[in-house]
Amino acid sequence: MKKISVGLLGLGTVGTGVVTILTNHQDKLMHQVGCPIELRKVLVQDINKDRLVEVDQSLLTLEVDDVVCNPEIDIVIEVMGGVEETRKHILAALKNKKHVVTANKDLMALYGPELLMEATNNGCDLFYEASVAGGIPILRSLVDGLASDRITKMMGIVNGTTNFILTKMSKDKRTYEDVLSEAQRLGYAESDPTSDVEGIDAARKMAILATLGFSMNIALDDVRIKGISTISEEDLDYSKRFGYTMKLIGMAARDGDRVEVSVEPTLISDHHPLASVNDEYNAVYVLGEAVGETMFYGPGAGSLPTATAVVSDLVAVMKNMRLGVNGRSAVSPQFEKKLKVASEIKSKYFLRIHVQDQVGAFSKITTVFTNHGVSFEKILQLPLNDKNIAEIVVVTHKASLKDYEEILQELEALEVIHQVKSSYRVEGEGM
Amino acid sequence: MKKISVGLLGLGTVGTGVVTILTNHQDKLMHQVGCPIELRKVLVQDINKDRLVEVDQSLLTLEVDDVVCNPEIDIVIEVMGGVEETRKHILAALKNKKHVVTANKDLMALYGPELLMEATNNGCDLFYEASVAGGIPILRSLVDGLASDRITKMMGIVNGTTNFILTKMSKDKRTYEDVLSEAQRLGYAESDPTSDVEGIDAARKMAILATLGFSMNIALDDVRIKGISTISEEDLDYSKRFGYTMKLIGMAARDGDRVEVSVEPTLISDHHPLASVNDEYNAVYVLGEAVGETMFYGPGAGSLPTATAVVSDLVAVMKNMRLGVNGRSAVSPQFEKKLKVASEIKSKYFLRIHVQDQVGAFSKITTVFTNHGVSFEKILQLPLNDKNIAEIVVVTHKASLKDYEEILQELEALEVIHQVKSSYRVEGEGM
Repeated sequence: MKKISVGLLGLGTVGTGVVTILTNHQDKLMHQVGCPIELRKVLVQDINKDRLVEVDQSLLTLEVDDVVCNPEIDIVIEVMGGVEETRKHILAALKNKKHVVTANKDLMALYGPELLMEATNNGCDLFYEASVAGGIPILRSLVDGLASDRITKMMGIVNGTTNFILTKMSKDKRTYEDVLSEAQRLGYAESDPTSDVEGIDAARKMAILATLGFSMNIALDDVRIKGISTISEEDLDYSKRFGYTMKLIGMAARDGDRVEVSVEPTLISDHHPLASVNDEYNAVYVLGEAVGETMFYGPGAGSLPTATAVVSDLVAVMKNMRLGVNGRSAVSPQFEKKLKVASEIKSKYFLRIHVQDQVGAFSKITTVFTNHGVSFEKILQLPLNDKNIAEIVVVTHKASLKDYEEILQELEALEVIHQVKSSYRVEGEGM
Repeated sequence: MKKISVGLLGLGTVGTGVVTILTNHQDKLMHQVGCPIELRKVLVQDINKDRLVEVDQSLLTLEVDDVVCNPEIDIVIEVMGGVEETRKHILAALKNKKHVVTANKDLMALYGPELLMEATNNGCDLFYEASVAGGIPILRSLVDGLASDRITKMMGIVNGTTNFILTKMSKDKRTYEDVLSEAQRLGYAESDPTSDVEGIDAARKMAILATLGFSMNIALDDVRIKGISTISEEDLDYSKRFGYTMKLIGMAARDGDRVEVSVEPTLISDHHPLASVNDEYNAVYVLGEAVGETMFYGPGAGSLPTATAVVSDLVAVMKNMRLGVNGRSAVSPQFEKKLKVASEIKSKYFLRIHVQDQVGAFSKITTVFTNHGVSFEKILQLPLNDKNIAEIVVVTHKASLKDYEEILQELEALEVIHQVKSSYRVEGEGM
């Protein structure tokens, strides 16, 4: 039977994994798709670089056209990363009627709708399972497995670096800076960790998840983002004491036809399945109207796990080729985008506040909350070592984001308040 | 556009859920499949029975042929349960070129290969996602999401009734009998709970999972089965003390080309993601050579969750109809079945033994283990209230099933031993 030929853009961490799986699992792949898979060309930046995987030197090329314009290549796998240049390469491949599998979340979050449309117009498949939560087949589960249900909420731990950092800070009582250095030494964090620790990476994945889950084009700019770099040991201590675990949670929620999408450090109930997702692991919790609570857990990154998702997409493309039905599985969004405004976004909040330790201080603070109709679920007041300052920690009942933001402003303006040290979203019931 | 017509066999718990979803989610379903879905006939046992869902009386029928031989019906959904009669109905439907979606694990565990072959021969789809772990899209994840990987191990909490019972026994320190009665009152357990509590229901699901995960026809008879009805409060206490949680675990493991499949109460490490799957929830943990650890969590039963899986299968059939590719997705098993023999099956074991409290007793016991080359990871000896009897609890290092069974026999034959009170498989590291 005819071989199917694959071209690879990039031979870094994920590319190496793809070559390894294509080599080691050739028998399973052949059984499933009914013909051999041949790696035909690999775009690299340096032909002579030492590789962790054996690739015939003659397959390597410095010219992108050797892959995307190569008439002998059926499917292009993009694992080079980057956005603007890469977009051009993928558009070129699609125009040349090549199916595309990509692991590129940055690209899909920014140009997903354009690229999917181009694929459909050319009768090509464009699959991107690896772009969200590495080895976890979450996109497929949303599109196929939960095809009949209406998703109302998704919450994801979709960035392994920040989950590693928060887990270590929380379990070993270490500082953010200390754990970040370790993560960088271990290769879990980049030398410039901004994209991970400020929540940008997670936001890209949430834009992709929300687009699929709510059948609505959600852009990266629609995601409210807050990172983890200012989380202190004190915050983690109070979280635990109240029965919560601090996680960087990507959240996408729908009420009727309006949605909200955010990425922010969140105190999540210890009873919630996401609370026990630790270290560099990822998980996506999906709430459906009919199915109820489900969760998908696994490795969010790494060479082989991510490559598993890439090659599973490759198998899907090849099955479609065998059936002659490529380019017909993408379903365009059903709904027009409608984002909730700040007065419609409701949550419980945790606030840690330093106040002048004087008569009436607490009363002034509660007045601010009361004026906005916000009441407390938990209150803790402790004297600090500095005799003139007390620490007040509260968890509110549900408040709108609008009220919460106004409360923060009004608190900062109060004379009795030394500083609002930190504040976070709270999800679920503590102890 | 042409309507697609669906016939339903059965209008019990799951059937009611299917009708509810078809009614409530009609807009989403239409958007995905491009045409309306019409419910054409429903096989019931009693036309006049009160229903929890509104169904036009004229659709109800007592004659199975009104569904499976109805020329106006494209797809038959089987949610009536039962095996022998139901098998005939499904065969009839397939011979009449109707696609079939079933939630019937008993049927698929016993006659899966026959029915799938009949479907393929007739160019029909036969999907059965709902047969394992209710609303969790686990079959699809194994077949598509992890298509490129080689699965080495699956462990599942795939029976909600027993997980509910073990969770309550463990958390509230209640007896098996007490919790079983509550489960029966709540409708979580049948009046005859045998199939659930003796592990038979879970074994059917594991046979289906192992067949798909290992691409090998695994029959129900290939599954070693042990139920939960003899688990005592003492066993649960010791589990906790050693850092383990007692769960009814369905296990399917592969070493090279040989596999083993079992369902038995297992002490699973508190650190394992399955340990925190509580109450009636299900989860399937999948270990792949490339992807590593993944877990799929959700509701294992219930009207709407199970119906979600049924209707998602229905969507898959309809997408295939639109593309004209029905009956071509089933992949026949790649490998011949090879089961491990008892000397190849390795595990750690927990044993709780009552011995005569006399000098040399412990030494006689250890000799039995030593003769089989089995050593201890943990030992605990406590005097009981009865002065002449001591309780010894051990966790062994890995031993073969053959050695373990022989050790059990030899222990029972020792004069110093009053009784081997209980013994269980152990998975992972305790504290």
